[in-house]
Amino acid sequence: MADSVHPTPLLKDELDIVIPTIRNLDFLEMWRPFFQPYHLIIVQDGDPSKTIKVPEGFDYELYNRNDINRILGPKASCISFKDSACRCFGYMVSKKKYIFTIDDDCFVAKDPSGKEINALAQHIKNLLSPSTPFFFNTLYDPYREGADFVRGYPFSLREGAPTAVSHGLWLNIPDYDAPTQLVKPSERNTRYVDAVLTIPKKTLFPMCGMNLGFNRELIGPAMYFGLMGDGQPIGRYDDMWAGWCVKVICDHLGWGVKTGLPYIWHSKASNPFVNLKKEYKGIFWQEELIPFFQAAVLPKECETVQQCYIELSKQVKEKLGGLDPYFTKLSEAMVTWIEAWDELNPSKGLPNGSA
Amino acid sequence: MADSVHPTPLLKDELDIVIPTIRNLDFLEMWRPFFQPYHLIIVQDGDPSKTIKVPEGFDYELYNRNDINRILGPKASCISFKDSACRCFGYMVSKKKYIFTIDDDCFVAKDPSGKEINALAQHIKNLLSPSTPFFFNTLYDPYREGADFVRGYPFSLREGAPTAVSHGLWLNIPDYDAPTQLVKPSERNTRYVDAVLTIPKKTLFPMCGMNLGFNRELIGPAMYFGLMGDGQPIGRYDDMWAGWCVKVICDHLGWGVKTGLPYIWHSKASNPFVNLKKEYKGIFWQEELIPFFQAAVLPKECETVQQCYIELSKQVKEKLGGLDPYFTKLSEAMVTWIEAWDELNPSKGLPNGSA
Repeated sequence: MADSVHPTPLLKDELDIVIPTIRNLDFLEMWRPFFQPYHLIIVQDGDPSKTIKVPEGFDYELYNRNDINRILGPKASCISFKDSACRCFGYMVSKKKYIFTIDDDCFVAKDPSGKEINALAQHIKNLLSPSTPFFFNTLYDPYREGADFVRGYPFSLREGAPTAVSHGLWLNIPDYDAPTQLVKPSERNTRYVDAVLTIPKKTLFPMCGMNLGFNRELIGPAMYFGLMGDGQPIGRYDDMWAGWCVKVICDHLGWGVKTGLPYIWHSKASNPFVNLKKEYKGIFWQEELIPFFQAAVLPKECETVQQCYIELSKQVKEKLGGLDPYFTKLSEAMVTWIEAWDELNPSKGLPNGSA
Repeated sequence: MADSVHPTPLLKDELDIVIPTIRNLDFLEMWRPFFQPYHLIIVQDGDPSKTIKVPEGFDYELYNRNDINRILGPKASCISFKDSACRCFGYMVSKKKYIFTIDDDCFVAKDPSGKEINALAQHIKNLLSPSTPFFFNTLYDPYREGADFVRGYPFSLREGAPTAVSHGLWLNIPDYDAPTQLVKPSERNTRYVDAVLTIPKKTLFPMCGMNLGFNRELIGPAMYFGLMGDGQPIGRYDDMWAGWCVKVICDHLGWGVKTGLPYIWHSKASNPFVNLKKEYKGIFWQEELIPFFQAAVLPKECETVQQCYIELSKQVKEKLGGLDPYFTKLSEAMVTWIEAWDELNPSKGLPNGSA
């Protein structure tokens, strides 16, 4: 159907890389060949008096808590403190069409032939080609070279849908929760699965923020990483929360979410005991959250991501407020986030941020 | 979660291999190391006077059209003639719990390390481990060695669901429709994707009958390959039809359908001009069929596969009868199929065929 004869464009002027606090200087050195052409937005999650050293040659802007407070004023309350969830501030201040976000313990992985994987190029490929959320293609991404739609795939669906999200995976340390980390401390992901696939419409998934690309102009206002870390009863659910909201809204607006390639090398497991403390409420709450998001219906009148997100915040307050007062606070932060987003990203008069 | 420390059982006495007409003696020779322990059911699709030679050493039963007519009487009308769709007669006469069906132009494939793939062993692995239809796991099959459920996967869903179907893939000649074959005559599938995944609930897929395993006791009565070939206006939609019916019923009854490994080597492309003649109505009709199956709802009262299938046949008559008289005929054949199935497989008094 769509053999690509063109090389993947770099999108140098259309993509920002957003990184929460960089604690590890090797990180940027290792990614230098791939990241140096891009603008970096670094969002520092902890003590603003500590200085992050960025090696020479990178084009970057750095925001600490003082910057966030100064720029957002009282609305800064929606941005998490002392938690990598603060990275979503970077999505908000970016002016680019695409975002790639990555953690500082994620390094360049190698494919089975031993070649270093340019994760960013694969995310760009994923984001620039359509998704297939309405029917499953058994040979995976039909737009990839050497692949296509199989027999029995309706022709009317072969144009696909715009791709909003590209969710990449991890070799070495898998993204497990604390209980699984504790039970399987030495499990490593060594399986390189050479596939990209669209997560079907009406199917939720656990979106990990470690290695994630998205079309900011399409879905940016829904990429809110919630209230985590300092002063909050929960951590490590920032990306999950964003993923559930994003998927419900993509399903409503007819956009696709892909998962699979590219892999990064996840170098170290976080402390499972610390993680358990952050997660334990989430592990309990997610049993209610998943059915909530599975059942969530957005009315037809919601035509922009902002409208969808505000509607979702109302449903969160109404249906999850009783689970814990945290969700009332979160639903209010969701509204604040949208207000802050719109303040920093004044509408150009076109719906769906497609300006 | 479920590291397998046991080798895959052979299930010699619990699995039949069903093959439509074998035109190629190399086929069985090549599969001999893998198939010889099993009982084969060969269903001859064409002229009953022609003899199929089965090499020494295989345990098999062979049915031709005369046998089908003798065994089913007037109900034989539901079994296709001069089309490989006749294979479903083999599902009906089997007395085993599991079925593996394969085409005679499918050979043993090799994995990337050059090792011959025992497709049957992988299907058994897929069928014996649970599926995850209710939430998507980004690291694919969580029950596979070295894998698990990722962070954010609800613990209440980690037991999974019984697996009804294992859909295997093809290296070399991909399963394309005639238009795609015509446009890309030389495309070959060379990508070995090392993954098994559950097709999420409420997602339809194009089920190919070339390399397919299923739990006959669970889903057998829905594995009807329809009316194709001689005297019918359509061909090459037998497996597609079965797949759509099966998926709707699995979704209703809470069972899983997996796709991915194992690969077989699909040796030769069928003639695209002949295929186009068989397919062209299907290509048009599938635009109506997919929305029909996507919208199909089975009432709670349908608790067995048979009940679900009869209900589906009514909906086919009612909602697709207007598309073409063929669908009225097909809906009646669906009922005949269930009657014939029940005649050959008298109930042991337990629901869902789980006896």
